Amino acid sequence: MTTTPDGRPRRMLTLGAVLQGAGGHIAGWRHPLSPPDGELDLAHHIRVAQTLERGTFDALFIADVVAISGTDLDALHRTARSVRFEPLTLLAALSTVTERIGLVGTASTTYNEPFHVARKFASLDHLSAGRAGWNAVTSVLPQEAANFGRDAHLEHGLRYRRAEEFVEVVRELWDSFDDGAVRRDIAAGRYYDPTGLRTPHHRGEHFAVRGPLSISRPPQGHPVIFQAGSSEAGKDFAARYGEVVFTGQGTLAGAQRFYADVKARAAAHGRNPDHLLVWPILAPIVGDTEAAARARRDELLELIHDDVARRLVQDTVGDVDLSGYPLDGPLPEVGETNRSRSRSEQMLDLARRENLTIRGLARRSSGGGMITGTPETIADHVEEWFTGRGADGFNVGFPYLPGAAEDFVDQVVPELRRRGLFRESYTETTLRGHLGLPRPVAIARRDDLTHPSEPLADEPSRAGSR
Amino acid sequence: MTTTPDGRPRRMLTLGAVLQGAGGHIAGWRHPLSPPDGELDLAHHIRVAQTLERGTFDALFIADVVAISGTDLDALHRTARSVRFEPLTLLAALSTVTERIGLVGTASTTYNEPFHVARKFASLDHLSAGRAGWNAVTSVLPQEAANFGRDAHLEHGLRYRRAEEFVEVVRELWDSFDDGAVRRDIAAGRYYDPTGLRTPHHRGEHFAVRGPLSISRPPQGHPVIFQAGSSEAGKDFAARYGEVVFTGQGTLAGAQRFYADVKARAAAHGRNPDHLLVWPILAPIVGDTEAAARARRDELLELIHDDVARRLVQDTVGDVDLSGYPLDGPLPEVGETNRSRSRSEQMLDLARRENLTIRGLARRSSGGGMITGTPETIADHVEEWFTGRGADGFNVGFPYLPGAAEDFVDQVVPELRRRGLFRESYTETTLRGHLGLPRPVAIARRDDLTHPSEPLADEPSRAGSR
Repeated sequence: MTTTPDGRPRRMLTLGAVLQGAGGHIAGWRHPLSPPDGELDLAHHIRVAQTLERGTFDALFIADVVAISGTDLDALHRTARSVRFEPLTLLAALSTVTERIGLVGTASTTYNEPFHVARKFASLDHLSAGRAGWNAVTSVLPQEAANFGRDAHLEHGLRYRRAEEFVEVVRELWDSFDDGAVRRDIAAGRYYDPTGLRTPHHRGEHFAVRGPLSISRPPQGHPVIFQAGSSEAGKDFAARYGEVVFTGQGTLAGAQRFYADVKARAAAHGRNPDHLLVWPILAPIVGDTEAAARARRDELLELIHDDVARRLVQDTVGDVDLSGYPLDGPLPEVGETNRSRSRSEQMLDLARRENLTIRGLARRSSGGGMITGTPETIADHVEEWFTGRGADGFNVGFPYLPGAAEDFVDQVVPELRRRGLFRESYTETTLRGHLGLPRPVAIARRDDLTHPSEPLADEPSRAGSR
Repeated sequence: MTTTPDGRPRRMLTLGAVLQGAGGHIAGWRHPLSPPDGELDLAHHIRVAQTLERGTFDALFIADVVAISGTDLDALHRTARSVRFEPLTLLAALSTVTERIGLVGTASTTYNEPFHVARKFASLDHLSAGRAGWNAVTSVLPQEAANFGRDAHLEHGLRYRRAEEFVEVVRELWDSFDDGAVRRDIAAGRYYDPTGLRTPHHRGEHFAVRGPLSISRPPQGHPVIFQAGSSEAGKDFAARYGEVVFTGQGTLAGAQRFYADVKARAAAHGRNPDHLLVWPILAPIVGDTEAAARARRDELLELIHDDVARRLVQDTVGDVDLSGYPLDGPLPEVGETNRSRSRSEQMLDLARRENLTIRGLARRSSGGGMITGTPETIADHVEEWFTGRGADGFNVGFPYLPGAAEDFVDQVVPELRRRGLFRESYTETTLRGHLGLPRPVAIARRDDLTHPSEPLADEPSRAGSR
C-alpha cells in the first residue's frame, strides 16, 4: 500500500473480476469472438485469468449456485447458465498458472459443512501461497434446496443465523494450528509443536464440529471473506464478517448510501471500517468512441433470443404470461398482485416512461450494471464512484469474454494508472496484501482441554452441555 | 491396449501411486532427502507427479480422511499425518501441470452430499480432459464423525447401504446431460439440446436429490470408481461399483484368494470381471544390491521416534499400555481381551516366533507392504503377482518421496518395460483408456417428467411418494 506525503496509507482502488465462461451477459456466449465451449474450456479460463493478472486485478471471482439456475428450461437451453466448472477445482487449477491474482470462490453456508469449507479454502490458500478468498452465500434458489434433500429453503433469518455460526466455526478451524506451529524439526522428530494445536470443540445451534482442521494455518491466516448481502440481515452479516462486500447499485447516490450504511455497521461492531471494502458491480463495454461502445453493446443485445427475452421480462416484472404478446409490442398491463419487489416496480415505471417494448425492456434488464464508454469516460465513472465514497473498488462483470476483459485491461487500466488511482504493478504477494487488509490474529485459545497427551478419540462427548 | 497375436486385447500391468507428502512410511518425513514442508509444498507434489508421469503410471492417488487421523497426540506430533492438502483442490492444481496421468482422489460417502461429490469429480474430469477417478470410502474413524455433528459413526452395514445409494445418485447426476447434448449452436441460439437433459429426481433411503447436475457429461462418461473394501460388505460394494479395488495383501496366496473372490462377485453381479482391476499395495525400496536396499530401509526404520514406535505397537496388538516397558526389551504378555483382529494375532505370533523386541515389532508393523530389492527382484515380485492373478496392477505407496518414486521410475519401470509387462509410453489420453475400462453408457432415461417446457422450479414435490 502506498502512502500519502504525511506517511498515512493512501486509499487505493481495488478491482475484482467475475470469471464466468463466455461472459456475464446472458447472450455473451453467442458473441462472435466467444470461445468454443467457453464454460468448460480450461485454456480459455487460463487466458482470461492471465489477462486479468496482466491488468494487476486484485482478484478473480467465481460466482456459483449449487443447481441448474434457471426456472424455465425453454429459455435456459438458450443460455450458457446451466454448465460450469465447480469453483474450488477451477480456482485450484488456476493457482498453478497465475502468480499474484487473488482466487475467490463461492460456497454456500446453507448446503455445506463448515469442516469441508474451511478445509478447501485453507488448501487453496496454501496451493496459491496466500491468494484465496471465500464468497459466503446463504443460497436463495429453491432448486438448490432440492439437490440436498430439502423441499424448501431455510427461512431467511434462520439461513443467516446458520451462516454466522458457519463462519465462526470456519474461522476457528482455520486457527487449529498456530502460525509457525508446524515446524518440521527433523532432528528432534517433532513435526509440529503440540502446544500450538487447538481443538475447537464447537457445539452450537446448527453445528457440532470437534476439529482440529488437518492443515497448517493458511498463509493469510484466514482466506479473505467476501459477501453480497443486501437485506438487513445480509448487511449486518457483511458488517460483522465481510471483508469485501459486493453490491449491485444503479446510481452513485444509492451506492453512497449503501457504502455509508455498511461502513457504519462495521464500526458499530467494533471493526475498522477501512477493513471492509465495498465493491459495486460494473459491467463495462469499452469503445474508441461512445458510439462505438454503444454499437458493441447493441450487437450483444441483438443476440438475446426471443424466448430468453420473454423470460427475462417475466422474471423481472413478476410471473406474467407473455406468450401471447409480440416482443416488439408494448408490455401488457401487469396486475398489482404479480408485482413483488422494488426492482419490478422500477422496471415497470421505466418501461412506461420510455415506452419500451417487451424486447426493449428485456434488453434493458439484461444489462445489470452495464455501462458503455471510452476508456476515459469509463475511468471517469470509476473515479467518481471511488472518490465519492460509493465504492472502494469494483466487481467487474465483463459482458463477454475474453474480449471485454482484454479491452478493459489494455485501455481502461492504463487510464486508471495514469490518474494514480490503480497500482502500476503488484507490490504484495497475497490477496490480503493487495487489498490492504490485515492478517487476522488467531482466535484466542478457547478450550484448554487439548494438551499433548490427550487422546483425540476418547474424549467424552459434550452432547447435552447446551 | 495392445493385442495378442490372435487379436485379443492383451492383459497389461497397470500402476497407481500414492501421492502422500514426504512418503507413505510414518518416518518418511524425517528422511534426509525429504523436502522441506513436504506435506504442503506444491512444487514437491508437482515434481513427484511429473516423475510418475515420466514413468507412465496410470494414476496418482490421494488418500484421505476428514479429520486429524491419529488417536494419540503425543505420537501424532512426531508424524506428518496431521497436515495435508484437501484432495480435490490438489488434484485440480496438478491437472494443469500434467498431461496424461490419472488423478484419483478420496471422498467419503458418509460425510458428503452426492451432489457435491458428483460435481467436483465431473469438474476435475473436465479440467483434466478425462483423467479423474474417485476413491469412494465409507470412513472409519470416530474423529471424522465428530467433525460432522455425529457422536458416533454410522453402523457398518448402514454405511455401506448409504454408500451404494450415494454412488447410484452420483452416476445418475453424471448422466444429467447426454453426451453431445451441449452443442453450443451459436447461430440457432441453442446452448444445449433440451431433449438431452435429464433430471434424476432421486428419492431414496438416505438421499433426495433432484438434479440435474450443472455440468456437461464428464469426458470419461463417469470418472473411474476406486474402492478398498475388505469386509464382506466392502467386497460386495467393490464387486458392484468398483473399477479398481485397492487391497493390502501380505502373501501371493492371500492376494490370489482376494482376486478370485472379487472377480467372481463382479461376475455374479453381471459385470465383466476384466472391468474390475485388483491393485494390492506395494511399498518398494530399490537398491543396486539386496543389501543396499535393505540398508536404505533400515535407515528409514531408524527414524521412527520412540513415542511413535510405542504407539504403533499399541495400535497393532490392541491398546495395551507399554509406557513402562523398554523399547528394546521383549513385548509383555498381552491379555486375550485386548486382542481384536486377525492382524493383531498375526503380529503377536510374529513377535513370539522371531523374538522381536517392542521396537522390532514397531519397525515390522510400520512397513505395510514394504519390500526391498534390486530392480530385477522387485520386477520379479510384480511379475509373479501379476501373472499369478494376484494382481492386475499395484497401488504403489512409496515409503519416502521423492526419492523412492524416482528410483522406481528410473530403475524398476524400465525393467518392467523390458519384460513387456508395462507400457513404453502412453497410448491413450484418459484414465479409462490407460486402464482398458469401457466408457459407461448413460443410465437409461428413468424419468420422462423432464421436457423442455417444464419449469424447473414449480414442479410439485414428490415427497411422500415412498
